[in-house]
Amino acid sequence: MPIISFRGLNMPESPIRKLAPYARRAKDKGIKVYHLNIGQPDIKSPQAAIQALKNIDLDIFEYAPSEGILEYRKTLATYYNSLSIGLKDLSYENFLISNGGSESLSIAISCICDEGDEIIVPEPFYANYYSFAEALGVKIVPVVSTIDDGFSLPKIKKFEELITPRTKAILITNPSNPTGYLYSKEELQTLADIVVKNNIFLISDEVYREYVYDGFKHYSVLEFQELKDNAIVIDSESKRYSLCGIRCGFMVSRNQEFLQMALKFAQARLSPPLIGQLIANAAHSEPQKYIDDVRNEYQQRRDLLVQLLREIPGVKCPVPRGAFYCTIELPIDDAEHFCLWLLKDFQYEGGTVMLAPAQGFYSDHELGKNQVRMAYVINQEDLKSAIHIIKKGLEVYNSNQ
Amino acid sequence: MPIISFRGLNMPESPIRKLAPYARRAKDKGIKVYHLNIGQPDIKSPQAAIQALKNIDLDIFEYAPSEGILEYRKTLATYYNSLSIGLKDLSYENFLISNGGSESLSIAISCICDEGDEIIVPEPFYANYYSFAEALGVKIVPVVSTIDDGFSLPKIKKFEELITPRTKAILITNPSNPTGYLYSKEELQTLADIVVKNNIFLISDEVYREYVYDGFKHYSVLEFQELKDNAIVIDSESKRYSLCGIRCGFMVSRNQEFLQMALKFAQARLSPPLIGQLIANAAHSEPQKYIDDVRNEYQQRRDLLVQLLREIPGVKCPVPRGAFYCTIELPIDDAEHFCLWLLKDFQYEGGTVMLAPAQGFYSDHELGKNQVRMAYVINQEDLKSAIHIIKKGLEVYNSNQ
Ligand SMILES: Cc1ncc(COP(=O)(O)O)c(C=O)c1O
Ligand SMILES: Cc1ncc(COP(=O)(O)O)c(C=O)c1O
Repeated sequence: MPIISFRGLNMPESPIRKLAPYARRAKDKGIKVYHLNIGQPDIKSPQAAIQALKNIDLDIFEYAPSEGILEYRKTLATYYNSLSIGLKDLSYENFLISNGGSESLSIAISCICDEGDEIIVPEPFYANYYSFAEALGVKIVPVVSTIDDGFSLPKIKKFEELITPRTKAILITNPSNPTGYLYSKEELQTLADIVVKNNIFLISDEVYREYVYDGFKHYSVLEFQELKDNAIVIDSESKRYSLCGIRCGFMVSRNQEFLQMALKFAQARLSPPLIGQLIANAAHSEPQKYIDDVRNEYQQRRDLLVQLLREIPGVKCPVPRGAFYCTIELPIDDAEHFCLWLLKDFQYEGGTVMLAPAQGFYSDHELGKNQVRMAYVINQEDLKSAIHIIKKGLEVYNSNQ
Repeated sequence: MPIISFRGLNMPESPIRKLAPYARRAKDKGIKVYHLNIGQPDIKSPQAAIQALKNIDLDIFEYAPSEGILEYRKTLATYYNSLSIGLKDLSYENFLISNGGSESLSIAISCICDEGDEIIVPEPFYANYYSFAEALGVKIVPVVSTIDDGFSLPKIKKFEELITPRTKAILITNPSNPTGYLYSKEELQTLADIVVKNNIFLISDEVYREYVYDGFKHYSVLEFQELKDNAIVIDSESKRYSLCGIRCGFMVSRNQEFLQMALKFAQARLSPPLIGQLIANAAHSEPQKYIDDVRNEYQQRRDLLVQLLREIPGVKCPVPRGAFYCTIELPIDDAEHFCLWLLKDFQYEGGTVMLAPAQGFYSDHELGKNQVRMAYVINQEDLKSAIHIIKKGLEVYNSNQ
């Protein structure tokens, strides 16, 4: 047996993957499993996108340009320029299309970091950041945000303590997966000051930008003119338009030197998906009502979720202001064990719940040991049932221990 | 301006890219440019594939499983098992779907190599191998094959001289891009012996497998039972079915430990394209006549190409037995200069030709300096005109120098 790489051996396995066989077994036993564990929206894709697929009339499915289809990149520039007055200057040349936002993250890290370089990331964070970095020999340096502070940005001092000559970027998710935390303009200004002072990049993953609640405004790092060379935005059509399977994401930057380098990585893999881009391009022509309705639906779910969770004794639940996740504390010691138990040994009125243990979102796995992440990607009736099951589950679990 | 990575700075720029603006300018001047420079087939995609796209009726485009859709993986197992009696044992579990064959190459290298590890590749080779390796800090160690030997496999001694403790794999393309060379069973046996003896992997990129001419048989490395743990095949629907834009490729192996590791990299990027897989799955139900017709067409073009090229004084042209490329020697000193000159300064009866200078396919850029690669992805009439232009071009070029 030939030798496998350390890079491969060190790739993390997600705790959700470990639970998956138990969810399958529960289903095989006829138990209804409510999936709050993954970020796959249940919302329908826009009509314009579905129609665009039906209208495709090609007899050769050719490679698309490595940087993406010109028309789609122009559409994206128009979309971005409509978001805020701080973004009026973007053109198609600021956009590079990728296989989902995922690939943009990998390419961005490749352009910025050599093996052994470091990226500072507020944790808990989207677990795959760790995988992308590990695959490239890059070190994720966490700066801890806590549930008791509602996952707000740690003090500037904390960041400055962590910066070394190998630090190449700060990476944030705004709004956040897994916490739903939305950064304030002041917090972003703080980060802007740090990256400019230290001459490093600020990568902002804004794939959940459209889903911000309570009338709060989302600020993009692109709105800070002083970040002209430093700001890289990661974006995706996956969550915005329920188009996860078309694999269409992109990066946005005003730094042309960076984009030219990213293009070389993009050229090596030849082309982003042709059909995905045609669909995504059309999705942007869907009336604004689509996003408004979806936002409204998510906000109602979030309200329901927070209200019901806070009624459960011992549950700590900050109010998430964006995305469709919340990370909460449960009155238990080991969330991984509890999540497994729910699937293996518990049911209430024929149902159980699959949750994501939060350990996977912390690089220090002791942190978040009593936390879980929930994605509110099921309808409100089901959400009610699911939370009721969690409540009943906690009662039984804690009386058994 | 923050610092860019060495990894990024070292990413090669393809010589074809440098020519592209000149091709555009020639077109703007009304000159017809015959494109022999890229591997984008002009052949129509199969009807079954086009129909499958029209039949898609989804209202949410969800993520596909990270390893690919089960049904499509089963289809691929059936396809492979039909190829040869040496392949009767494959099941869907031997297949992992990726964003084109390109991503499978990246993932395979990631699983096998750490930074500083080495992969031996007969050159000239597909230029992006170098990019994938560079992006991961992996060294490509070339073993030179020559046009005078018709690009046949170098002697076993040559390989053994290059193997070091850091050598993790030998990577071949069969049949080859850029040469069209088809490996014999004996050559593959030689490679099999080397990799088993040295306990390393043999990666065989077989994306052009279906396009083999003159009744020759293609041997897959999977047919060698002694390579159970060592063989990895890279494959893709791009060229087989003229489906480059759907971004559907895959890897095949009997080494489950390797595939489990590859799956972790696949999980990090979530999902291969959903729609691409649905189309590719359907393409495999197209009657065999499709592949036979396409093979026939390519063989006719190849015959024409070789015949006409050999009529040009000073041109050396081995007979390619597979794929749709040939690498030939021209009676000039600097192919890059000649290719540029064709686009910039030459036309014959209103037309000119875009070729790929072969330097890009050699890691030692001095090799292949008087060679070009041609992809016969244009129809026979156009092919005739293109070669006539090259002939006239050589006359003028060589009388000017
Ligand atoms: C924060 C964040 N970034 C990026 C992604 C990648 O999504 P995709 O590759 O589908 O665009 C996800 C997906 O869940 C995510 O949650
Ligand atoms: C030898 C070889 N391997 C792999 C690929 C990658 O193709 P794709 O990513 O479209 O499957 C190509 C494309 O030209 C190729 O020539």
